[in-house]
Amino acid sequence: MSNGAKTRVERTRKCILAAATELFLKQGYLGTNMDEIAALAEVSKQTVYAHFQNKETLFLEIAGGMTGRAGDEHQEQVADPADTVPLAQFLLEFADVQLTLVMTPRLLQLRRLAIAEAERFPELGKLLYQRGPMRSINRLANLFQRYRALGQLRMADPLAAAAFFNWLVMGGPVNDVMLLGIEAIPKPEVLRAHAKEAVRIFLAAYGSDA
Amino acid sequence: MSNGAKTRVERTRKCILAAATELFLKQGYLGTNMDEIAALAEVSKQTVYAHFQNKETLFLEIAGGMTGRAGDEHQEQVADPADTVPLAQFLLEFADVQLTLVMTPRLLQLRRLAIAEAERFPELGKLLYQRGPMRSINRLANLFQRYRALGQLRMADPLAAAAFFNWLVMGGPVNDVMLLGIEAIPKPEVLRAHAKEAVRIFLAAYGSDA
Repeated sequence: MSNGAKTRVERTRKCILAAATELFLKQGYLGTNMDEIAALAEVSKQTVYAHFQNKETLFLEIAGGMTGRAGDEHQEQVADPADTVPLAQFLLEFADVQLTLVMTPRLLQLRRLAIAEAERFPELGKLLYQRGPMRSINRLANLFQRYRALGQLRMADPLAAAAFFNWLVMGGPVNDVMLLGIEAIPKPEVLRAHAKEAVRIFLAAYGSDA
Repeated sequence: MSNGAKTRVERTRKCILAAATELFLKQGYLGTNMDEIAALAEVSKQTVYAHFQNKETLFLEIAGGMTGRAGDEHQEQVADPADTVPLAQFLLEFADVQLTLVMTPRLLQLRRLAIAEAERFPELGKLLYQRGPMRSINRLANLFQRYRALGQLRMADPLAAAAFFNWLVMGGPVNDVMLLGIEAIPKPEVLRAHAKEAVRIFLAAYGSDA
Protein backbone atom coordinates (compact mmCIF):
# COMPACT_ATOMS: atom_id res chain seq x y z
CA MET A 1 0.00 0.00 0.00
CA SER A 2 1.34 3.48 -0.84
CA ASN A 3 1.86 5.99 1.93
CA GLY A 4 -1.04 8.09 0.66
CA ALA A 5 -3.36 5.07 0.70
CA LYS A 6 -2.19 4.16 4.22
CA THR A 7 -2.94 7.67 5.42
CA ARG A 8 -6.41 7.54 3.85
CA VAL A 9 -7.15 4.17 5.44
CA GLU A 10 -5.95 5.48 8.80
CA ARG A 11 -8.08 8.60 8.44
CA THR A 12 -11.19 6.56 7.61
CA ARG A 13 -10.55 4.34 10.62
CA LYS A 14 -10.31 7.38 12.88
CA CYS A 15 -13.55 8.80 11.45
CA ILE A 16 -15.37 5.55 12.15
CA LEU A 17 -14.00 5.37 15.69
CA ALA A 18 -14.99 8.99 16.40
CA ALA A 19 -18.52 8.48 15.05
CA ALA A 20 -18.97 5.20 16.93
CA THR A 21 -17.67 6.69 20.19
CA GLU A 22 -20.12 9.56 19.98
CA LEU A 23 -23.08 7.26 19.26
CA PHE A 24 -22.23 4.57 21.82
CA LEU A 25 -21.76 7.11 24.62
CA LYS A 26 -25.02 8.83 23.75
CA GLN A 27 -27.26 5.89 22.85
CA GLY A 28 -25.69 2.94 24.63
CA TYR A 29 -24.33 -0.24 23.11
CA LEU A 30 -27.63 -1.96 22.27
CA GLY A 31 -29.18 1.31 21.12
CA THR A 32 -26.54 1.88 18.43
CA ASN A 33 -26.24 0.04 15.11
CA MET A 34 -23.60 -0.12 12.40
CA ASP A 35 -25.81 1.75 9.88
CA GLU A 36 -25.91 4.82 12.11
CA ILE A 37 -22.17 4.64 12.68
CA ALA A 38 -21.54 4.45 8.91
CA ALA A 39 -23.91 7.37 8.29
CA LEU A 40 -22.31 9.61 10.93
CA ALA A 41 -18.79 8.70 9.72
CA GLU A 42 -19.93 9.37 6.14
CA VAL A 43 -18.69 6.01 4.87
CA SER A 44 -20.49 2.93 3.59
CA LYS A 45 -21.47 0.14 5.95
CA GLN A 46 -19.10 -2.12 3.98
CA THR A 47 -16.24 0.22 4.86
CA VAL A 48 -17.13 0.01 8.55
CA TYR A 49 -17.05 -3.80 8.35
CA ALA A 50 -13.78 -3.72 6.41
CA HIS A 51 -12.20 -2.01 9.42
CA PHE A 52 -14.08 -3.69 12.26
CA GLN A 53 -15.42 -7.22 12.12
CA ASN A 54 -18.58 -6.43 14.08
CA LYS A 55 -20.13 -4.03 16.57
CA GLU A 56 -18.57 -5.90 19.47
CA THR A 57 -15.03 -5.57 18.10
CA LEU A 58 -15.59 -1.91 17.41
CA PHE A 59 -16.83 -1.21 20.92
CA LEU A 60 -13.99 -3.15 22.54
CA GLU A 61 -11.52 -1.10 20.48
CA ILE A 62 -13.11 2.14 21.70
CA ALA A 63 -13.42 1.09 25.33
CA GLY A 64 -9.87 -0.28 25.39
CA GLY A 65 -8.55 2.90 23.80
CA MET A 66 -10.33 5.27 26.19
CA THR A 67 -9.37 3.45 29.39
CA GLY A 68 -5.88 2.63 28.11
CA ARG A 69 -5.19 6.29 27.32
CA ALA A 70 -6.44 7.40 30.74
CA GLY A 71 -4.19 4.82 32.39
CA ASP A 72 -1.18 5.83 30.28
CA GLU A 73 -1.75 9.46 31.08
CA HIS A 74 -2.00 8.67 34.78
CA GLN A 75 1.29 6.81 34.66
CA GLU A 76 2.91 9.69 32.76
CA GLN A 77 1.65 12.39 35.10
CA VAL A 78 2.47 10.42 38.26
CA ALA A 79 5.70 8.60 37.55
CA ASP A 80 6.84 5.86 39.90
CA PRO A 81 8.45 7.81 42.71
CA ALA A 82 12.13 7.84 43.57
CA ASP A 83 12.82 6.48 47.07
CA THR A 84 13.36 10.05 48.20
CA VAL A 85 9.78 11.11 47.50
CA PRO A 86 7.73 11.01 50.72
CA LEU A 87 5.05 8.34 50.48
CA ALA A 88 2.24 10.71 51.55
CA GLN A 89 3.14 13.13 48.77
CA PHE A 90 3.21 10.38 46.15
CA LEU A 91 -0.13 8.91 47.26
CA LEU A 92 -1.83 12.29 47.23
CA GLU A 93 -0.58 13.00 43.72
CA PHE A 94 -1.62 9.51 42.61
CA ALA A 95 -5.14 10.01 43.99
CA ASP A 96 -5.52 13.58 42.70
CA VAL A 97 -4.52 12.72 39.16
CA GLN A 98 -6.62 9.56 39.11
CA LEU A 99 -9.72 11.44 40.23
CA THR A 100 -9.09 14.17 37.67
CA LEU A 101 -8.71 11.66 34.85
CA VAL A 102 -11.57 9.34 35.76
CA MET A 103 -14.20 11.81 36.98
CA THR A 104 -15.05 12.98 33.47
CA PRO A 105 -18.45 12.56 31.76
CA ARG A 106 -16.96 10.43 28.95
CA LEU A 107 -15.12 7.88 31.09
CA LEU A 108 -17.98 7.62 33.57
CA GLN A 109 -20.47 7.14 30.76
CA LEU A 110 -18.24 4.38 29.34
CA ARG A 111 -18.15 2.77 32.76
CA ARG A 112 -21.94 2.95 32.91
CA LEU A 113 -22.19 1.19 29.53
CA ALA A 114 -19.77 -1.54 30.59
CA ILE A 115 -21.80 -2.16 33.76
CA ALA A 116 -25.07 -2.15 31.80
CA GLU A 117 -23.74 -4.81 29.41
CA ALA A 118 -21.53 -6.81 31.79
CA GLU A 119 -23.71 -9.94 31.75
CA ARG A 120 -24.53 -9.93 28.00
CA PHE A 121 -21.08 -8.75 26.86
CA PRO A 122 -18.59 -9.90 29.53
CA GLU A 123 -15.43 -9.07 27.56
CA LEU A 124 -16.30 -5.40 27.85
CA GLY A 125 -16.60 -5.33 31.63
CA LYS A 126 -13.48 -7.44 31.92
CA LEU A 127 -11.53 -5.08 29.66
CA LEU A 128 -12.55 -2.04 31.67
CA TYR A 129 -11.74 -3.85 34.90
CA GLN A 130 -8.27 -4.80 33.70
CA ARG A 131 -7.36 -1.43 32.20
CA GLY A 132 -9.10 0.54 34.96
CA PRO A 133 -9.09 -0.49 38.64
CA MET A 134 -6.93 -3.61 38.20
CA ARG A 135 -4.13 -1.76 36.44
CA SER A 136 -4.07 0.91 39.10
CA ILE A 137 -4.30 -1.58 41.98
CA ASN A 138 -1.49 -3.74 40.57
CA ARG A 139 0.72 -0.73 40.11
CA LEU A 140 0.12 0.42 43.69
CA ALA A 141 0.68 -3.09 45.07
CA ASN A 142 4.13 -3.15 43.45
CA LEU A 143 5.01 0.24 44.87
CA PHE A 144 3.70 -0.74 48.32
CA GLN A 145 6.05 -3.73 48.33
CA ARG A 146 8.96 -1.37 47.75
CA TYR A 147 7.86 1.05 50.47
CA ARG A 148 7.35 -1.90 52.76
CA ALA A 149 10.90 -3.07 52.09
CA LEU A 150 12.05 0.47 52.97
CA GLY A 151 10.18 0.17 56.27
CA GLN A 152 7.67 2.92 55.41
CA LEU A 153 4.62 0.67 55.12
CA ARG A 154 3.41 -2.27 57.21
CA MET A 155 1.03 -4.69 55.56
CA ALA A 156 0.61 -8.43 55.12
CA ASP A 157 -1.11 -8.21 51.73
CA PRO A 158 -0.06 -5.34 49.44
CA LEU A 159 -2.66 -6.23 46.79
CA ALA A 160 -5.53 -6.07 49.32
CA ALA A 161 -4.13 -2.82 50.74
CA ALA A 162 -3.92 -1.37 47.22
CA ALA A 163 -7.55 -2.27 46.57
CA PHE A 164 -8.59 -0.56 49.83
CA PHE A 165 -6.65 2.56 48.79
CA ASN A 166 -8.28 2.51 45.37
CA TRP A 167 -11.82 2.35 46.77
CA LEU A 168 -11.14 4.87 49.54
CA VAL A 169 -10.28 7.30 46.75
CA MET A 170 -12.65 6.27 43.96
CA GLY A 171 -15.54 4.51 45.76
CA GLY A 172 -17.66 7.48 46.83
CA PRO A 173 -17.22 9.74 43.79
CA VAL A 174 -17.56 7.02 41.13
CA ASN A 175 -20.54 5.26 42.71
CA ASP A 176 -22.40 8.50 43.40
CA VAL A 177 -22.16 9.34 39.70
CA MET A 178 -23.17 5.81 38.65
CA LEU A 179 -26.48 6.14 40.53
CA LEU A 180 -27.07 9.91 40.37
CA GLY A 181 -25.78 10.79 36.90
CA ILE A 182 -22.97 13.04 35.73
CA GLU A 183 -24.32 16.13 37.47
CA ALA A 184 -23.06 14.41 40.64
CA ILE A 185 -19.41 14.84 39.56
CA PRO A 186 -17.89 16.80 42.49
CA LYS A 187 -16.03 20.07 42.02
CA PRO A 188 -12.21 19.83 41.81
CA GLU A 189 -11.70 21.35 45.28
CA VAL A 190 -14.10 18.81 46.79
CA LEU A 191 -12.20 15.98 45.09
CA ARG A 192 -8.89 17.36 46.40
CA ALA A 193 -10.10 17.43 49.99
CA HIS A 194 -11.52 13.93 49.54
CA ALA A 195 -8.19 12.62 48.20
CA LYS A 196 -6.32 14.18 51.11
CA GLU A 197 -8.52 12.50 53.69
CA ALA A 198 -8.34 9.16 51.84
CA VAL A 199 -4.52 9.30 51.99
CA ARG A 200 -4.62 10.21 55.70
CA ILE A 201 -6.91 7.22 56.44
CA PHE A 202 -4.70 4.86 54.45
CA LEU A 203 -1.48 5.96 56.16
CA ALA A 204 -3.09 5.82 59.60
CA ALA A 205 -3.76 2.13 58.92
CA TYR A 206 -0.65 1.10 56.98
CA GLY A 207 2.02 3.73 57.60
CA SER A 208 4.97 2.57 59.68
CA ASP A 209 3.96 5.00 62.47
CA ALA A 210 0.54 3.34 62.59
CA MET B 1 -64.76 -3.81 49.02
CA SER B 2 -65.32 -7.15 50.81
CA ASN B 3 -62.42 -8.84 52.55
CA GLY B 4 -62.41 -11.61 49.95
CA ALA B 5 -62.20 -9.05 47.13
CA LYS B 6 -59.40 -7.20 48.94
CA THR B 7 -57.45 -10.43 49.29
CA ARG B 8 -57.92 -11.22 45.59
CA VAL B 9 -56.77 -7.72 44.59
CA GLU B 10 -53.75 -8.05 46.87
CA ARG B 11 -52.94 -11.48 45.46
CA THR B 12 -53.12 -10.21 41.88
CA ARG B 13 -50.87 -7.30 42.78
CA LYS B 14 -48.30 -9.68 44.25
CA CYS B 15 -48.45 -11.89 41.14
CA ILE B 16 -47.80 -8.91 38.89
CA LEU B 17 -44.90 -7.72 41.06
CA ALA B 18 -43.34 -11.20 41.11
CA ALA B 19 -43.63 -11.59 37.32
CA ALA B 20 -42.30 -8.09 36.66
CA THR B 21 -39.37 -8.58 39.06
CA GLU B 22 -38.36 -11.79 37.33
CA LEU B 23 -38.53 -10.23 33.86
CA PHE B 24 -36.83 -6.94 34.73
CA LEU B 25 -33.92 -8.67 36.46
CA LYS B 26 -33.48 -11.07 33.54
CA GLN B 27 -34.13 -8.80 30.56
CA GLY B 28 -33.43 -5.32 31.85
CA TYR B 29 -35.80 -2.38 32.03
CA LEU B 30 -35.90 -1.45 28.34
CA GLY B 31 -35.98 -5.11 27.29
CA THR B 32 -39.20 -5.82 29.20
CA ASN B 33 -42.72 -4.74 28.22
CA MET B 34 -46.07 -4.73 29.96
CA ASP B 35 -47.48 -7.47 27.65
CA GLU B 36 -44.84 -9.95 28.80
CA ILE B 37 -45.46 -9.03 32.42
CA ALA B 38 -49.22 -9.59 32.01
CA ALA B 39 -48.60 -12.93 30.27
CA LEU B 40 -46.22 -14.21 32.95
CA ALA B 41 -48.54 -13.03 35.74
CA GLU B 42 -51.47 -14.67 33.87
CA VAL B 43 -53.59 -11.52 34.00
CA SER B 44 -54.78 -9.12 31.29
CA LYS B 45 -52.74 -6.08 30.37
CA GLN B 46 -55.67 -3.97 31.60
CA THR B 47 -55.31 -5.56 35.03
CA VAL B 48 -51.60 -4.67 35.09
CA TYR B 49 -52.44 -1.04 34.27
CA ALA B 50 -55.23 -1.02 36.87
CA HIS B 51 -52.57 -1.76 39.50
CA PHE B 52 -49.63 0.20 38.10
CA GLN B 53 -49.96 3.35 36.03
CA ASN B 54 -47.05 2.51 33.76
CA LYS B 55 -43.83 0.51 33.46
CA GLU B 56 -41.88 3.22 35.26
CA THR B 57 -44.18 3.17 38.32
CA LEU B 58 -44.05 -0.60 38.41
CA PHE B 59 -40.25 -0.70 38.30
CA LEU B 60 -39.91 2.00 40.98
CA GLU B 61 -42.23 -0.03 43.20
CA ILE B 62 -40.08 -3.14 42.74
CA ALA B 63 -36.75 -1.37 43.18
CA GLY B 64 -37.98 0.54 46.22
CA GLY B 65 -39.35 -2.65 47.75
CA MET B 66 -36.18 -4.69 47.22
CA THR B 67 -33.75 -2.08 48.57
CA GLY B 68 -36.15 -1.01 51.32
CA ARG B 69 -36.48 -4.59 52.58
CA ALA B 70 -32.71 -5.10 52.54
CA GLY B 71 -32.25 -1.88 54.51
CA ASP B 72 -34.96 -2.81 57.01
CA GLU B 73 -33.44 -6.24 57.48
CA HIS B 74 -30.01 -4.70 58.03
CA GLN B 75 -31.42 -2.39 60.70
CA GLU B 76 -33.21 -5.32 62.36
CA GLN B 77 -30.19 -7.60 62.36
CA VAL B 78 -27.78 -4.89 63.52
CA ALA B 79 -29.71 -2.75 65.99
CA ASP B 80 -28.27 0.59 67.08
CA PRO B 81 -25.79 -0.43 69.74
CA ALA B 82 -26.07 0.34 73.43
CA ASP B 83 -23.22 2.52 74.72
CA THR B 84 -21.73 -0.60 76.30
CA VAL B 85 -21.14 -2.33 72.96
CA PRO B 86 -17.51 -1.87 71.85
CA LEU B 87 -17.38 0.21 68.69
CA ALA B 88 -15.15 -2.29 66.83
CA GLN B 89 -17.63 -5.08 67.48
CA PHE B 90 -20.57 -3.00 66.27
CA LEU B 91 -18.78 -1.89 63.10
CA LEU B 92 -17.76 -5.42 62.21
CA GLU B 93 -21.30 -6.67 62.64
CA PHE B 94 -22.62 -3.74 60.62
CA ALA B 95 -20.20 -4.48 57.77
CA ASP B 96 -20.70 -8.26 57.86
CA VAL B 97 -24.47 -8.05 57.68
CA GLN B 98 -24.42 -5.36 55.00
CA LEU B 99 -22.12 -7.44 52.80
CA THR B 100 -24.28 -10.53 53.32
CA LEU B 101 -27.47 -8.65 52.40
CA VAL B 102 -26.11 -6.70 49.43
CA MET B 103 -23.79 -9.24 47.81
CA THR B 104 -26.65 -11.28 46.35
CA PRO B 105 -27.32 -11.80 42.63
CA ARG B 106 -30.74 -10.12 42.84
CA LEU B 107 -29.71 -6.91 44.56
CA LEU B 108 -26.56 -6.57 42.46
CA GLN B 109 -28.55 -7.13 39.28
CA LEU B 110 -31.00 -4.43 40.41
CA ARG B 111 -28.06 -2.10 41.01
CA ARG B 112 -26.77 -2.89 37.52
CA LEU B 113 -30.18 -1.97 36.04
CA ALA B 114 -30.35 1.28 38.00
CA ILE B 115 -26.86 2.24 36.77
CA ALA B 116 -27.73 1.27 33.20
CA GLU B 117 -30.82 3.52 33.23
CA ALA B 118 -29.56 6.32 35.49
CA GLU B 119 -29.47 8.97 32.73
CA ARG B 120 -32.75 7.98 31.00
CA PHE B 121 -34.65 7.17 34.22
CA PRO B 122 -33.08 9.28 36.98
CA GLU B 123 -35.74 8.55 39.64
CA LEU B 124 -34.61 4.94 39.69
CA GLY B 125 -30.93 5.67 40.40
CA LYS B 126 -31.93 8.27 42.96
CA LEU B 127 -34.26 5.83 44.73
CA LEU B 128 -31.55 3.18 44.95
CA TYR B 129 -29.06 5.76 46.16
CA GLN B 130 -31.38 6.98 48.91
CA ARG B 131 -32.51 3.56 50.11
CA GLY B 132 -29.06 1.98 49.63
CA PRO B 133 -25.78 3.79 50.36
CA MET B 134 -27.34 7.04 51.59
CA ARG B 135 -29.53 5.35 54.17
CA SER B 136 -26.60 3.37 55.50
CA ILE B 137 -24.24 6.36 55.49
CA ASN B 138 -26.75 8.60 57.30
CA ARG B 139 -27.34 5.97 59.93
CA LEU B 140 -23.61 5.54 60.52
CA ALA B 141 -23.05 9.30 60.65
CA ASN B 142 -25.61 9.59 63.46
CA LEU B 143 -23.98 6.77 65.40
CA PHE B 144 -20.53 8.27 64.84
CA GLN B 145 -21.71 11.52 66.40
CA ARG B 146 -22.73 9.60 69.49
CA TYR B 147 -19.44 7.68 69.71
CA ARG B 148 -17.62 10.97 69.17
CA ALA B 149 -19.50 12.53 72.08
CA LEU B 150 -18.43 9.50 74.17
CA GLY B 151 -14.82 10.20 73.20
CA GLN B 152 -14.45 6.96 71.22
CA LEU B 153 -14.17 8.54 67.77
CA ARG B 154 -12.32 11.62 66.55
CA MET B 155 -13.56 13.20 63.34
CA ALA B 156 -14.47 16.64 62.01
CA ASP B 157 -17.10 15.41 59.57
CA PRO B 158 -19.11 12.32 60.61
CA LEU B 159 -20.96 12.17 57.27
CA ALA B 160 -17.70 12.11 55.25
CA ALA B 161 -16.25 9.51 57.65
CA ALA B 162 -19.38 7.38 57.26
CA ALA B 163 -19.06 7.51 53.47
CA PHE B 164 -15.40 6.41 53.71
CA PHE B 165 -16.44 3.50 55.94
CA ASN B 166 -19.20 2.53 53.52
CA TRP B 167 -16.84 2.41 50.52
CA LEU B 168 -14.02 0.71 52.43
CA VAL B 169 -16.51 -2.10 53.06
CA MET B 170 -18.60 -2.10 49.87
CA GLY B 171 -16.33 -0.51 47.22
CA GLY B 172 -14.21 -3.47 46.16
CA PRO B 173 -16.83 -6.25 46.31
CA VAL B 174 -19.67 -4.27 44.69
CA ASN B 175 -17.59 -2.72 41.91
CA ASP B 176 -15.87 -5.99 41.05
CA VAL B 177 -19.28 -7.56 40.49
CA MET B 178 -20.54 -4.57 38.50
CA LEU B 179 -17.73 -5.03 35.95
CA LEU B 180 -17.10 -8.78 36.19
CA GLY B 181 -20.60 -10.18 36.69
CA ILE B 182 -22.17 -12.13 39.52
CA GLU B 183 -19.62 -14.95 39.38
CA ALA B 184 -17.29 -12.39 41.00
CA ILE B 185 -19.32 -12.44 44.26
CA PRO B 186 -16.70 -13.43 46.86
CA LYS B 187 -17.16 -16.38 49.22
CA PRO B 188 -18.54 -15.56 52.71
CA GLU B 189 -15.18 -16.17 54.41
CA VAL B 190 -13.45 -13.79 52.00
CA LEU B 191 -16.08 -11.13 52.72
CA ARG B 192 -15.62 -11.63 56.47
CA ALA B 193 -11.86 -11.11 56.28
CA HIS B 194 -12.43 -8.08 54.05
CA ALA B 195 -14.90 -6.56 56.56
CA LYS B 196 -12.46 -7.13 59.41
CA GLU B 197 -9.65 -5.30 57.63
CA ALA B 198 -12.00 -2.46 56.61
CA VAL B 199 -12.95 -1.93 60.26
CA ARG B 200 -9.30 -2.01 61.31
CA ILE B 201 -8.42 0.66 58.70
CA PHE B 202 -11.33 2.84 59.76
CA LEU B 203 -10.50 2.69 63.47
CA ALA B 204 -6.80 3.31 62.81
CA ALA B 205 -7.85 6.60 61.19
CA TYR B 206 -10.77 7.68 63.38
CA GLY B 207 -10.55 5.70 66.63
CA SER B 208 -9.68 7.76 69.71
CA ASP B 209 -6.35 5.87 70.04
CA ALA B 210 -5.49 6.94 66.48
